[in-house]
Amino acid sequence: MEKDYCENLLNLLAQGDFSNLKRQLSEMNVVDIAEFLGTLEKGQLVRVFRILPKDISASVFSYLESEDQVDIVGSITDNELGSLVGELFLDDAVDFLEEVPANVVTRVLANTDHKTRQMINTFLKYPENSAGSIMTNEMVELHDRFTVAQAIAHIRSTGVGKETIYSCYCIDNGRRLIGTVSLSDLIFNNEGAFIRDIMHEDEKMICVNTMDDQEAVADIAKKYDLLSIPVVDNEKRLVGIITIDDIVDIIEEENTEDFEKMALMHPSDDEYLKTGVFTLVKNRIVWLLVLMVSATFTGKIIDNFEGMLAVMVGLTASIPMLMDTGGNSGSQSSTLIIRGLALGEIQMKDYPKVLIKEIQVGMLCGIILAVVNFGRMYLIAGPEKNIPIYIVTSLSLICAVVLSKAIGCSLPIIAKVFKLDPALMAGPLITTIVDALVLIIYFALAKTFLM
Amino acid sequence: MEKDYCENLLNLLAQGDFSNLKRQLSEMNVVDIAEFLGTLEKGQLVRVFRILPKDISASVFSYLESEDQVDIVGSITDNELGSLVGELFLDDAVDFLEEVPANVVTRVLANTDHKTRQMINTFLKYPENSAGSIMTNEMVELHDRFTVAQAIAHIRSTGVGKETIYSCYCIDNGRRLIGTVSLSDLIFNNEGAFIRDIMHEDEKMICVNTMDDQEAVADIAKKYDLLSIPVVDNEKRLVGIITIDDIVDIIEEENTEDFEKMALMHPSDDEYLKTGVFTLVKNRIVWLLVLMVSATFTGKIIDNFEGMLAVMVGLTASIPMLMDTGGNSGSQSSTLIIRGLALGEIQMKDYPKVLIKEIQVGMLCGIILAVVNFGRMYLIAGPEKNIPIYIVTSLSLICAVVLSKAIGCSLPIIAKVFKLDPALMAGPLITTIVDALVLIIYFALAKTFLM
Repeated sequence: MEKDYCENLLNLLAQGDFSNLKRQLSEMNVVDIAEFLGTLEKGQLVRVFRILPKDISASVFSYLESEDQVDIVGSITDNELGSLVGELFLDDAVDFLEEVPANVVTRVLANTDHKTRQMINTFLKYPENSAGSIMTNEMVELHDRFTVAQAIAHIRSTGVGKETIYSCYCIDNGRRLIGTVSLSDLIFNNEGAFIRDIMHEDEKMICVNTMDDQEAVADIAKKYDLLSIPVVDNEKRLVGIITIDDIVDIIEEENTEDFEKMALMHPSDDEYLKTGVFTLVKNRIVWLLVLMVSATFTGKIIDNFEGMLAVMVGLTASIPMLMDTGGNSGSQSSTLIIRGLALGEIQMKDYPKVLIKEIQVGMLCGIILAVVNFGRMYLIAGPEKNIPIYIVTSLSLICAVVLSKAIGCSLPIIAKVFKLDPALMAGPLITTIVDALVLIIYFALAKTFLM
Repeated sequence: MEKDYCENLLNLLAQGDFSNLKRQLSEMNVVDIAEFLGTLEKGQLVRVFRILPKDISASVFSYLESEDQVDIVGSITDNELGSLVGELFLDDAVDFLEEVPANVVTRVLANTDHKTRQMINTFLKYPENSAGSIMTNEMVELHDRFTVAQAIAHIRSTGVGKETIYSCYCIDNGRRLIGTVSLSDLIFNNEGAFIRDIMHEDEKMICVNTMDDQEAVADIAKKYDLLSIPVVDNEKRLVGIITIDDIVDIIEEENTEDFEKMALMHPSDDEYLKTGVFTLVKNRIVWLLVLMVSATFTGKIIDNFEGMLAVMVGLTASIPMLMDTGGNSGSQSSTLIIRGLALGEIQMKDYPKVLIKEIQVGMLCGIILAVVNFGRMYLIAGPEKNIPIYIVTSLSLICAVVLSKAIGCSLPIIAKVFKLDPALMAGPLITTIVDALVLIIYFALAKTFLM
């Protein structure tokens, strides 16, 4: 939405010209209307929301931030609330209720009709991030004995208010899913053709279970390029669908989770700016503590070589460089492997290939780094050059890079074998492990060649 | 696809029972067929591909890996090749040609009809990752003076082979995009209604330019929950569309790029297992070198305090712990901010709020870590406790965490101000900067309190 367009709306609002404001808003995209409402303060927000045409207000509502939703719910009558919730898609209603305080949920449920309330309650009971918790039950159902013409007529009469009419579902008398048919199948087939003859069944019918994780749902949608996926219960009865717009949200959510886990934070669905300081601390402190305490090992290693360091203080100066380069090399490998595993490009059976490749990459990177490091140390040193220290440092660097690449590519795959999330085996954790090993190698080489 | 199903197909293939194999394959989803073909060796792959029904072979082809595509192209006649490319969606043909060797491209273009060849050549010229390079020109175009019934008849007669029929586009005589209409608009409107009266125009019509970056395209599709986006040239003429399945691929590609950049690798579109060792080295070595050379500063800092370290070797043991904790704290902050910026949840104007929040989080985390660290050092120490060193280390820890959180949240936002990619300001880079600062603080505190 352009800035001056938004200013224009604000002007109309300031002038109290609600009829023009309403006309302009009704020509806008609901997403833009929601964005505009998001910039208003509470009183104005509620006033503008109430002048929205009835046919779009529920849609706009579903795009609002949850605080704004709560403000609106708090300012409208019970009647208005009942019809608003009735107009919402069921998945949007459930999303909204999952975010708001309990007293708002109670008031909303008290003001919806019996059937909607029952549905909402059922949907709220599915575990977080399950297919059941994100599906909607507003899908088009067709009889397999319909003709194409009957099916289209059925869609015309019942399809308004469905989440999508592009994918339709055929069920038997026991509500078991027996086939899917797309609106484009209907358009391209003869009007007299029977649904049972054109629907996709067996192999081509893809569906998920209510208890499947949303990540698995997204993977299937991505793999088969689907616009929506039917959701069935344990008895194969059709209970809902998940549409591509929600799949896209899931993909971004899962990616965010991976980013957070890779930086060793407890993943959170909340936007950063809306998360309190204590929650942020809680999400971050555990791993920081674990890794800090693990650093006891690196400390102990240094303590053990205290005598050597006291004699050759020059050795200490290279410790940060070795540790950082090892950590960075390991992060690169683990990031690529974690991402490859997440996208299904790397399987566990590829491990030997991956390991060999990483060791080769590590050797090459290590040699280049070692040569440059030798030059660097030689150039910045004062008049009394200490060539043996440069050699030991450079050799340690090669070992550090090879080792950290090998560990970096192995840990995510090992995590997967043990059914842990590979994303946890990212930079920070690998750095801590690599640090200790790099120090041992460095001191061992120093002891061998310099003492 | 289930394993025993796949084995069944392999059995049929081994028995040479091609008629049964063909029947089974024709009932399968094209994605699963492509997956099955991907497991075969070259000779079998080509044989099975040739028995596929004509109406699905192009679709299966578009889901194959590019090596398999090259194998097939190399084994079919010029005639077969011509009709295969003619059957492919234009965007899939372009994707395929972008990946294969030049001689294959030449042969493919030589065997396609003039119009397709011209189109492919035009599409191949758009810059990589631009909207033009990923769009297809197979969309449904409608006259705004059509009635709904005429429009549906038009879709029936021309829509087969279009990438989607769910979004249709209205253009004027100069091919300028004047409105969009969805198939669901057509279904729900009266058969006699005119397209010009029901199409979305003005504010509600969302489109992108051929030269727009694919990331911007994905952002718009996500924001407005679109199934496809029209692409126009500089004169606002409609030249193509991008459908949601490609948008989903772009989202994953852009996320992968961010993961790679955050681990300081040159982003690459290629799958890990298919990337050669030298390319992997090339993608990784630059930043490893830059950061290694930057570590000269940390080395210099240690050199400067050489005298102090020689007297108090105990100080050295805590260096890795301080550096790692600082780096980890900084990574957490930068990851959250980078992700928030990428998703549009954080804007540049939020910087003061972000900085204050991160400093508060840093203070709290720092104090907790410092207390635990004091305990840890006290417990693992031998009989002669050195309380002042524990205090200095713990104080340094607080400073390190606060500082690294402040830097971690600031650098991505600063990068954005200078139009750099915030994803580059991730863990490894922040670690290097934080390391130097942490050492300075540590040594300064040690000098003040211990000497």
